[in-house]
Amino acid sequence: MADSKLKIIPLGGLEQIGMNITVFEYEDSIIVVDCGLSFPEDDMLGIDLVIPDISYLKDNIDKVKGFFITHGHEDHIGAIPYVLREINVPIYATKLTIGIIDNKLKEHDMLRTVKRKVVRYGQHINLGCFRVEFIKTNHSIQDAAALAIYSPAGVVIHTGDFKVDYTPVFGDTIDLQRFGELGKKGVLALLCDSTNAERAGFTMSEKTVGKALDTIFADHKKNRIIISTFASNVDRVQQIINCAYNYGRKVVIEGRSMVSIISTASELGYIHIPEHTLIDIEKLKDYPDEMTVLITTGSQGESMAALSRIASGMHRKVAVKPNDLIVLSSSPIPGNEKAITKIINELSMKGAEVIFQDVHVSGHACAEDIKLIYSLVRPKYAIPVHGEYKHLKAQAKIAEELGVLKENIFLMFSGDILELDEDSAKITGKVHVSDVMVDGLGVGDVGNIVLRDRQHLAEEGIIIVVLTLEAGSGMALAGPDIVSRGFVYVRGSESLMEEAKHLLNGTVESCMDKHITDWGRIKAEIKDTLGEFVWKETKRRPMIIPIIMEV
Amino acid sequence: MADSKLKIIPLGGLEQIGMNITVFEYEDSIIVVDCGLSFPEDDMLGIDLVIPDISYLKDNIDKVKGFFITHGHEDHIGAIPYVLREINVPIYATKLTIGIIDNKLKEHDMLRTVKRKVVRYGQHINLGCFRVEFIKTNHSIQDAAALAIYSPAGVVIHTGDFKVDYTPVFGDTIDLQRFGELGKKGVLALLCDSTNAERAGFTMSEKTVGKALDTIFADHKKNRIIISTFASNVDRVQQIINCAYNYGRKVVIEGRSMVSIISTASELGYIHIPEHTLIDIEKLKDYPDEMTVLITTGSQGESMAALSRIASGMHRKVAVKPNDLIVLSSSPIPGNEKAITKIINELSMKGAEVIFQDVHVSGHACAEDIKLIYSLVRPKYAIPVHGEYKHLKAQAKIAEELGVLKENIFLMFSGDILELDEDSAKITGKVHVSDVMVDGLGVGDVGNIVLRDRQHLAEEGIIIVVLTLEAGSGMALAGPDIVSRGFVYVRGSESLMEEAKHLLNGTVESCMDKHITDWGRIKAEIKDTLGEFVWKETKRRPMIIPIIMEV
Repeated sequence: MADSKLKIIPLGGLEQIGMNITVFEYEDSIIVVDCGLSFPEDDMLGIDLVIPDISYLKDNIDKVKGFFITHGHEDHIGAIPYVLREINVPIYATKLTIGIIDNKLKEHDMLRTVKRKVVRYGQHINLGCFRVEFIKTNHSIQDAAALAIYSPAGVVIHTGDFKVDYTPVFGDTIDLQRFGELGKKGVLALLCDSTNAERAGFTMSEKTVGKALDTIFADHKKNRIIISTFASNVDRVQQIINCAYNYGRKVVIEGRSMVSIISTASELGYIHIPEHTLIDIEKLKDYPDEMTVLITTGSQGESMAALSRIASGMHRKVAVKPNDLIVLSSSPIPGNEKAITKIINELSMKGAEVIFQDVHVSGHACAEDIKLIYSLVRPKYAIPVHGEYKHLKAQAKIAEELGVLKENIFLMFSGDILELDEDSAKITGKVHVSDVMVDGLGVGDVGNIVLRDRQHLAEEGIIIVVLTLEAGSGMALAGPDIVSRGFVYVRGSESLMEEAKHLLNGTVESCMDKHITDWGRIKAEIKDTLGEFVWKETKRRPMIIPIIMEV
Repeated sequence: MADSKLKIIPLGGLEQIGMNITVFEYEDSIIVVDCGLSFPEDDMLGIDLVIPDISYLKDNIDKVKGFFITHGHEDHIGAIPYVLREINVPIYATKLTIGIIDNKLKEHDMLRTVKRKVVRYGQHINLGCFRVEFIKTNHSIQDAAALAIYSPAGVVIHTGDFKVDYTPVFGDTIDLQRFGELGKKGVLALLCDSTNAERAGFTMSEKTVGKALDTIFADHKKNRIIISTFASNVDRVQQIINCAYNYGRKVVIEGRSMVSIISTASELGYIHIPEHTLIDIEKLKDYPDEMTVLITTGSQGESMAALSRIASGMHRKVAVKPNDLIVLSSSPIPGNEKAITKIINELSMKGAEVIFQDVHVSGHACAEDIKLIYSLVRPKYAIPVHGEYKHLKAQAKIAEELGVLKENIFLMFSGDILELDEDSAKITGKVHVSDVMVDGLGVGDVGNIVLRDRQHLAEEGIIIVVLTLEAGSGMALAGPDIVSRGFVYVRGSESLMEEAKHLLNGTVESCMDKHITDWGRIKAEIKDTLGEFVWKETKRRPMIIPIIMEV
């Protein structure tokens, strides 16, 4: 026993931002924190989602005791239906988080097969060698938790995504006392949210958004108001509803994911909607514009979400009018800037006023908040998590400033195995993890070759050359014929393709003359000849596929 | 004569941000301001550039007298080689601008065919009914000019891209006196840069960046310094060189476009490089790291530029070391955020320190600067230019606040024809303009169908079905054979494709049985059958191309 160390292995994270899933292993026990997915990079053409590679868990299936989920955001729960299908162990989380997970399992028809356990703050769960305590935090979704993970090697604290909100809209402030108490007793390692580590100062309270919203409502008493925000930010929706109620407006909630989360939050008592405030979208026309508020999804410019459809005039029930005020209560997630700008422009062109600044606060701790947590916890080892490398590095700098020894700070890549106890900590190896891509119904079946082909097709198009040969003699009976898609010709298309055909006729004839019957060689000749010709004429390199048939 | 009005027609702009080209027409005279290109939208797969549709100019070729270029940025000069090939009239611009245009024409081997005239500030050019005066402005490239366009219908001022810099690094402050003088005499219309109209306050002087750079050099005396900025910002490069000189460092300039512009600027006297300061990149190894500075292109994350190659370890001559300081002296152009972040992360992972904030100022006027120009010019009509719709709208709001009548403010779309004189102004029609896409050597030959095909290929891949029929009888002699690219199968690939082939065999047989000999019908049957099967099995819709050959 004395020789055993605690292993910490992130299966996602740095190379797959958003895919939060971390393995904690001690002897015969494994627990997993979070089970998120990430969205495809720009070069993953046609891919819907990327999910974690759980080979390591499958290889150690007998050890795996359960999943602990810190909160209900996609990047922490999104892969549950895919992963739990293969590793069926219980899930532990707070009430609203389980509610949101339940919706997801329902969609995948897995509600009966997966065990979920609701955990209260302060409650401890014993699983194998581990004991896990849930600690209250604040975040842009309610019921977020940090985890204190008790192992024979020591206590590890995982903050999950968090902020420090002294005046939360719903529920209590983050349990700073408990962080202090645990710190006083001694904490081996801290895994702390780095998302905003580059930003100086403190993160503002969610309540400040309520004030900004109130001013907007006061200044726009004659306009219809459409507010777009994150579907899962129930507190934000609560504050919009409060404003609407105060100013005597009816509220429509539009967008599938928002309707789903708000109804779950409402059932579980996390949002309070005054009677007769919510109306169905069909009833919108029965009220004067200035008596209504629409709350919609799509604040990140998602092309299928409500706001985007409203902006482009494709929404079946809401058309933008010059008297509309549109509020984007959000800030752009990097990569979404252009899509959001497009929507703002479209709305402006339809005459609407658009407010998109200063109606949002972050759900993540800024530098000073992070310093507070480090000062309470005073861990021996620091493992910055959540964010890109530059964010982790910014937190590493903070940890060092606050007294963590430089050699005790670990910036971990996906698959890295960190082994640690009171005496030492070291990255001792690497678990192989690869991107598992989800495309349509297929999971994990899109490889790099397919992606490279798609990229090639996307940029250059394809030319197909078909040729029929006589069995035995190998004489050309028909073709070569040429078909192209996604490829264009500089000169008159006809003449270029005619010339290419003529050229290929020569190639095929010369193969016949030389008695080349190996299809591979004939195909290679066709490919080379045509490729060279097309490059010379057009400076393009379409994919060329020769197909030979035999009669 | 009394009936004639001035026509203003933007051929690019709103729908093609960056493609700045504006037609001014009066009776038998046309002059054109700027000749820019824009970069492809995300859905223009494989496209290199988008250039203006100049059909209107070609249709009125006898009227076209010349091009006036406000400054040497790509979005104002980039289409010159394409456009001047078809409309060969003289180009008028300031000295550095012509120098940069010359480089471009040289690359296209057009230096002998296109006439260029260097114009001084204050100089007037008479062309047809028009007289054009060049007025000194400030911008993020030297030698920028506003134009006063005198026509029989009145004076129009076009600011070009500009800022107000009271302490420019090189040359004079914007000629605010001349704007005032012209305004006092009466200006019909103002076309004013809107890029930063949403931003409150004033734009900072370029000199403030010099101070920030000095602090960085003072704080990093032991590091090698690599600074990335816009190739054309000669003043920025000058300030970096000044710092290097003051701190006794040698300078390497790296990146093709920067080397080209700096050498032109140097020849023409727009940058002063102390002797023995510049060294060749090959000599870098002869100096200690802390005695060198690299100035590179690629601050926007461009994948082929020097910084990106350095960050990814693909640069042949520069490898990043933990002791390097990398400075991004720029701010992200919307859409480039992700690419830039990727580079910052890559550099961080290699241990380098990266500074990417507060080492840049904008080259465009903010709201208060725009108010200054309006107050000096006091135009009857306001035509906000340069920027997205939301930016134009922000300027329209400013113009209205400053007393321009709302009905006298025009937000123009590409192709809109504005007819104006002292009595009235009205959009009277529209010139048809379409995107002219440049892909490889081809200009304008990529249409919407090709782009749609590329999108389809990119997302779903392609399945090709080939079939050889006997001439006359129409009997199937070979095939159907199936080839796919960029498409993946959910189940074992073999079995799915075998099943598909089996299915198509049936389809072809049934066509034979029904004596269907029309190839169109056979192809449609193949497409429908296979499409339905693939959708059912995989929930994907690859492009399906049936090819029939006859023997």
